[in-house]
Amino acid sequence: MLNYIENLCKKAKKASQTILSEEKINACLEKIAYNIGMKKNQIIEENLKDIQSSNLSKALTDRLTLNEKRIDSIIESLHTIINLKSPVGEIIKGWKLKNDLEIEKVRVPIGTIAIIYEARPNVTVDAFALCFKSSNACVLRGGKEAFNTNKYLSNLIRDTLTSCNINPDFLTFIDKTERQAIDYLIKMDKYIDLLIPRGGESLITHISKNATVPVIQHYKGLCHLYIDESANIDMALNIAYNAKVQRPSVCNAIETLLVHKNIASEFLPALAKKFENIVELRGCENTLKILPNIKQATQEDWQTEYLDYILSIKIVDSTDQAIEHINEYGSKHSEAIVTQNYTNAEDFLNKVDAACVYVNASTRFSDGGEFGFGAEIGISTSKLHARGPMALEELTTYKYKIRGNGQIRS
Amino acid sequence: MLNYIENLCKKAKKASQTILSEEKINACLEKIAYNIGMKKNQIIEENLKDIQSSNLSKALTDRLTLNEKRIDSIIESLHTIINLKSPVGEIIKGWKLKNDLEIEKVRVPIGTIAIIYEARPNVTVDAFALCFKSSNACVLRGGKEAFNTNKYLSNLIRDTLTSCNINPDFLTFIDKTERQAIDYLIKMDKYIDLLIPRGGESLITHISKNATVPVIQHYKGLCHLYIDESANIDMALNIAYNAKVQRPSVCNAIETLLVHKNIASEFLPALAKKFENIVELRGCENTLKILPNIKQATQEDWQTEYLDYILSIKIVDSTDQAIEHINEYGSKHSEAIVTQNYTNAEDFLNKVDAACVYVNASTRFSDGGEFGFGAEIGISTSKLHARGPMALEELTTYKYKIRGNGQIRS
Repeated sequence: MLNYIENLCKKAKKASQTILSEEKINACLEKIAYNIGMKKNQIIEENLKDIQSSNLSKALTDRLTLNEKRIDSIIESLHTIINLKSPVGEIIKGWKLKNDLEIEKVRVPIGTIAIIYEARPNVTVDAFALCFKSSNACVLRGGKEAFNTNKYLSNLIRDTLTSCNINPDFLTFIDKTERQAIDYLIKMDKYIDLLIPRGGESLITHISKNATVPVIQHYKGLCHLYIDESANIDMALNIAYNAKVQRPSVCNAIETLLVHKNIASEFLPALAKKFENIVELRGCENTLKILPNIKQATQEDWQTEYLDYILSIKIVDSTDQAIEHINEYGSKHSEAIVTQNYTNAEDFLNKVDAACVYVNASTRFSDGGEFGFGAEIGISTSKLHARGPMALEELTTYKYKIRGNGQIRS
Repeated sequence: MLNYIENLCKKAKKASQTILSEEKINACLEKIAYNIGMKKNQIIEENLKDIQSSNLSKALTDRLTLNEKRIDSIIESLHTIINLKSPVGEIIKGWKLKNDLEIEKVRVPIGTIAIIYEARPNVTVDAFALCFKSSNACVLRGGKEAFNTNKYLSNLIRDTLTSCNINPDFLTFIDKTERQAIDYLIKMDKYIDLLIPRGGESLITHISKNATVPVIQHYKGLCHLYIDESANIDMALNIAYNAKVQRPSVCNAIETLLVHKNIASEFLPALAKKFENIVELRGCENTLKILPNIKQATQEDWQTEYLDYILSIKIVDSTDQAIEHINEYGSKHSEAIVTQNYTNAEDFLNKVDAACVYVNASTRFSDGGEFGFGAEIGISTSKLHARGPMALEELTTYKYKIRGNGQIRS
């Protein structure tokens, strides 16, 4: 299997060295969108095979399912990507040296990007389209639960690439469902330039520990909301509700609420009322003095991404103490403060170490679409290369082009 | 030792969370430059201990040696760094969403940067100064041959930091010379944000394979010069000579010369004459037909960074074949073409996958100083985060600051 995977990666690398015009890329993406539309029934048929042979929970089966509406939204997002401007070729900066050498810093594709994902077959099309739009070749390894759907979609895309006179290896599909395929793939640093794992914490941790290919992690979203003593109570309640309840299963929902001690006795009872019968609250010792009927939070709670209707609450003495807690337990994803105090707002923005830091807004806005990027391939909690929502620009790197007329170094 | 190193890294991380004004940083760097000037004799004394107890080749002893002149140049480069503008705080871009959320993409320090280096004690001061100027804390692990010098310089800097009321852990010196110290350090991903190894290929490979901290590699400099059929012969000879002979031991010197078949019989004899008694030439089969007295190049030659007065030569049929050879064997560092043909020049610039691609100029210009960055912490052959010469900007990342007035997601 090692040779098999190495050979696939090698072919993907080869494909990535082709230079394609944005026009040609867009025309091919149009054709892919059209072909997906024409093959809806077949896609749903393959998807049914996956659903029938899997043994997943209701929530996971829902993630796996493609129906007509969802295929339409895949097609729609292809059109969105077609309409985005490719960042490739942008001259980021340029200057001339004293010796007349002209240096241009130019945005170029990264090359070959491997994406390892779980049971969401829409990722097959989305991830390919974002990589292809930015002139990268992608190597896809989806979860075995969606194998038939992924394979069908990949073949459809590869056939369309071929029909557009483009190397089909711009989409390389790893059709091995064994876990070992991942272990080989993540060591293909000779051919793969970047690895983006999308999935649960254990998958990400395994990959990060073992990969020799550089990884951009979306590790987890352990996000906090801090209610400062000067907060507007109504605004704080609305933001807390939105950040926790609107969609608790996603990474930009909050897991822990930090409350300044001077506002706790007013704010927390109102919160408890608003969250009653919806969210399980767990509090620190001081919180229990105000809300005696909730469960006590343990050390483990501060470290847990519930992804569920659970919220841990801690009372703090100051903005600095809130920042300290966040920098200790946060996953560097999205963090928010509600405050009317200028200094506390700026301190929070400057001192919190996270990709997205908010004043008086919900953490739920951390998303490529909401940010105006038009799409999203993930949200990076890494600090290198890309941070926060990642779209086309984050799938590029740069090179220096230097033009001379015989310059030598003295 | 694991606990010891973990504790040092933890303290460095803590220090990195301090926010310092550029004014305060510059004032402290001034004081460090002054103190180094005052302690020249003591530094030379410590350096002599290192030299006397080591058993290195003449070349390596030379690298290790600090004399008055070299200390002056360390002080000079501190002043250069003081005069550079810190990139921290730059608003890279900013925009407003339809819902009035204001998003700013702001340049921030990476955090904690570990640098593992070999026998050059000047790196201790240079690397610290670049990290500190960009508000990062650094963790330094120098080669054991320079232990006394590194330790003395580190203590001098730490004492100066303290005297400026700055946390001395902005410079954390790992005073363990065992190899195991490196193996622990490269797994401190909880506390270290970035690892920059500077040294030989085996050190870099070992670290890249085993680190869980993200690594920016300066892997090696296997650079090529391609002489196109339309090249100006004199220009080609000058650039070849400069790129190979001016300083063969550095990464941006060339190792392989590629020559178009239509110019080979004119160019190669002239090259052989210019390089006579200076550079050992090794040629492909076709080269030997023109230069029958040189050694035949083997497969291994195309893969070797000689760092010496040796040059391998290969005759190619076309610019595309030259590009193919480079993309197969090059280390993505610096590559050059000599040509008068517009299309070949542009093809080379676009298709060669390297950090720095040159037309009609020597590869020797790949250097932070030459590029006008004022300094250099290394040259990245990685494609992520930073590529090519790295200075202050490459030691930063970004965060999104988002200011609202109660926005929630619908």
